[in-house]
Amino acid sequence: MSALAFEILSTDGTARTGSLMTAHGPIDTPAFMPVGTAATVKAMTPEAVQATGAQCILANTYHLMLRPGPELIAELGGLHAFMNWPGPILTDSGGFQVWSLAKLRELDEDGVEFRSHLDGALHRLTPERAVEIQALLGGDVAMVLDECTPLAASEDEVAQSMRLSMRWAGRCKQAYRERDGHGLFGIVQGGVYAHLRAESAETLVRLGFDGYAIGGLSVGEGQKAMLKVVERTVPWLPEDRPRYLMGVGKPADLVGAVGRGIDMFDCVLPTRSGRTDQAFTRAGTLNLRNARHRKDPGPLDDACACPTCKGYSRAYLHHLVMAKEMLGPMLLTWHNLHYYQDLMAAMRQAINAGAFETFAAAFAAEQAVKEPGEN
Amino acid sequence: MSALAFEILSTDGTARTGSLMTAHGPIDTPAFMPVGTAATVKAMTPEAVQATGAQCILANTYHLMLRPGPELIAELGGLHAFMNWPGPILTDSGGFQVWSLAKLRELDEDGVEFRSHLDGALHRLTPERAVEIQALLGGDVAMVLDECTPLAASEDEVAQSMRLSMRWAGRCKQAYRERDGHGLFGIVQGGVYAHLRAESAETLVRLGFDGYAIGGLSVGEGQKAMLKVVERTVPWLPEDRPRYLMGVGKPADLVGAVGRGIDMFDCVLPTRSGRTDQAFTRAGTLNLRNARHRKDPGPLDDACACPTCKGYSRAYLHHLVMAKEMLGPMLLTWHNLHYYQDLMAAMRQAINAGAFETFAAAFAAEQAVKEPGEN
Repeated sequence: MSALAFEILSTDGTARTGSLMTAHGPIDTPAFMPVGTAATVKAMTPEAVQATGAQCILANTYHLMLRPGPELIAELGGLHAFMNWPGPILTDSGGFQVWSLAKLRELDEDGVEFRSHLDGALHRLTPERAVEIQALLGGDVAMVLDECTPLAASEDEVAQSMRLSMRWAGRCKQAYRERDGHGLFGIVQGGVYAHLRAESAETLVRLGFDGYAIGGLSVGEGQKAMLKVVERTVPWLPEDRPRYLMGVGKPADLVGAVGRGIDMFDCVLPTRSGRTDQAFTRAGTLNLRNARHRKDPGPLDDACACPTCKGYSRAYLHHLVMAKEMLGPMLLTWHNLHYYQDLMAAMRQAINAGAFETFAAAFAAEQAVKEPGEN
Repeated sequence: MSALAFEILSTDGTARTGSLMTAHGPIDTPAFMPVGTAATVKAMTPEAVQATGAQCILANTYHLMLRPGPELIAELGGLHAFMNWPGPILTDSGGFQVWSLAKLRELDEDGVEFRSHLDGALHRLTPERAVEIQALLGGDVAMVLDECTPLAASEDEVAQSMRLSMRWAGRCKQAYRERDGHGLFGIVQGGVYAHLRAESAETLVRLGFDGYAIGGLSVGEGQKAMLKVVERTVPWLPEDRPRYLMGVGKPADLVGAVGRGIDMFDCVLPTRSGRTDQAFTRAGTLNLRNARHRKDPGPLDDACACPTCKGYSRAYLHHLVMAKEMLGPMLLTWHNLHYYQDLMAAMRQAINAGAFETFAAAFAAEQAVKEPGEN
């Protein structure tokens, strides 16, 4: 039995709704987890993040191990107390960020050595240390350390890299100490090769994890390739455990992946877009710098109930982004996170009603009607 | 009778409490007005500003006339609707900002011509246009256009400048259209010369305004000189009208000026300090970049009930400012504005209890006990 209870509430084709019960409360799935890289969801208070409907956030081991350091966070009572977030937290293992350091890292069987992007100091991350750091941070869900395979790698390189990640997954599992309401997720690798994904999934399932993530799919392979990998990988994963698609994605990606059986997502897109003047709406993405918003008294999205849409016009938001006022990113991030949570809630509702296919078709049709001059 | 009712509730020596009734609600005095330069109090939502206890905010005519333009704001329903602020708004006249442009402006009897700091476009501000712009913005309290005299000016230059401001004040009064719950304030000039301040005050009182501001005192003359001017100017102002000390100041400045009969203040200090890692506390000012906060689990100020002090440690705030996370300025600004509003509420309470002198002495003693390494 897992230390992390997961109940499937309803299924509709491959899509399903469920509830993952953590030490800090439930996560209704399919769920989108806002990213709180450095122990803060950028431009948002925790209260505002909660008000969007988000239940679980993600924090980054890589950033927090460098600053302020996991031992200090533990000393201060763990991540929940440190950042004043009462709900569930998922911590990644740092693998993806270290991988993106490119020339600053060196990898061997034991682990990876890298230089901090902050001060150049040398750090070492091993499967055991990744598990230890995440225990110090005190998140509800921890992830195994993996190597993220470059997109351009050959099949043989992808296989070698995946098998290293699987050996690391075994060491993580070995090092992990179970606690009620807490769990460790494995990460399926294997690039775009179905048989390697299958081998990876089988290895992880044999090891036994509280949940299974699909990794390596937010690195530019395109939506079609991404969904194909999801479609071919999901059947290898146990039905009774949550499935988490890491680092994905755009609203349409989420709809496509939920339809293929994914339960959990994280992505910087709604928050990063909020800081670069973009707003997600039911009619596509708006660029608030666009002069056509200058005199527009309407909200970002008529159908949205977020505080940004209830209180502020596109004209005001345009003014804020032109004036580079901090309230611009604050209000746009709030709206974008609310939009993502609304989308997840609508998908859960459609699945529970056995109407996911209709929902997905309506969503695609709506997104196809772009506003003039936007994308 | 004035279109802006002002009731004095209690007096204690020269200090007094009162209530200024505007079209958008009352302002309890002595009051501190947070600055919302470009139609936003930087790093704060309007809800957060209200939660600090602030009733009235200030917006800047200069910034808003350049971007997005007063006609557009009027078209969108005025400043209150535009920025989603339901309470009273005071608009300055733009004089101070134009004055600070230095070489980009040219002044004559009629008004002042200047180039926008945004795009170099030529603009003209006259007393009549300043009143018109403020009517378009739709604030509750408007200010006359004045020339802000340079600190280094000779007595003769100060006199010339003050008399020009007084002629402009007359033209503003002439151009101003009275409305219930709205008012126009005159601005006393005259530098550090008591007889010029007296002449200016007498001129304004003869013209008759809804309130009287003391201008030109936030430009580096020092606290002692500033309070001396306040002390000598207040007796020339009518008892039954609010007195507003523009652009001041530090917590100790506010206490000193309230003791000398000032009712209203505005200053960028609490908001700007929040964006430069500074926090005001009962034990002086903290610099959150200071490494001594790195492991400190305590709040900024034990006696503060703001969300920052209730939810976050100095260690976390130190982490946020080191990581340049937006939540740092957001939480520090919130705390600083809360601190300022707490200070005003404490002064009102002390005056109502006839104990202002005791309060001021205790405040000075508390501020004298600095924390190590801070100022």
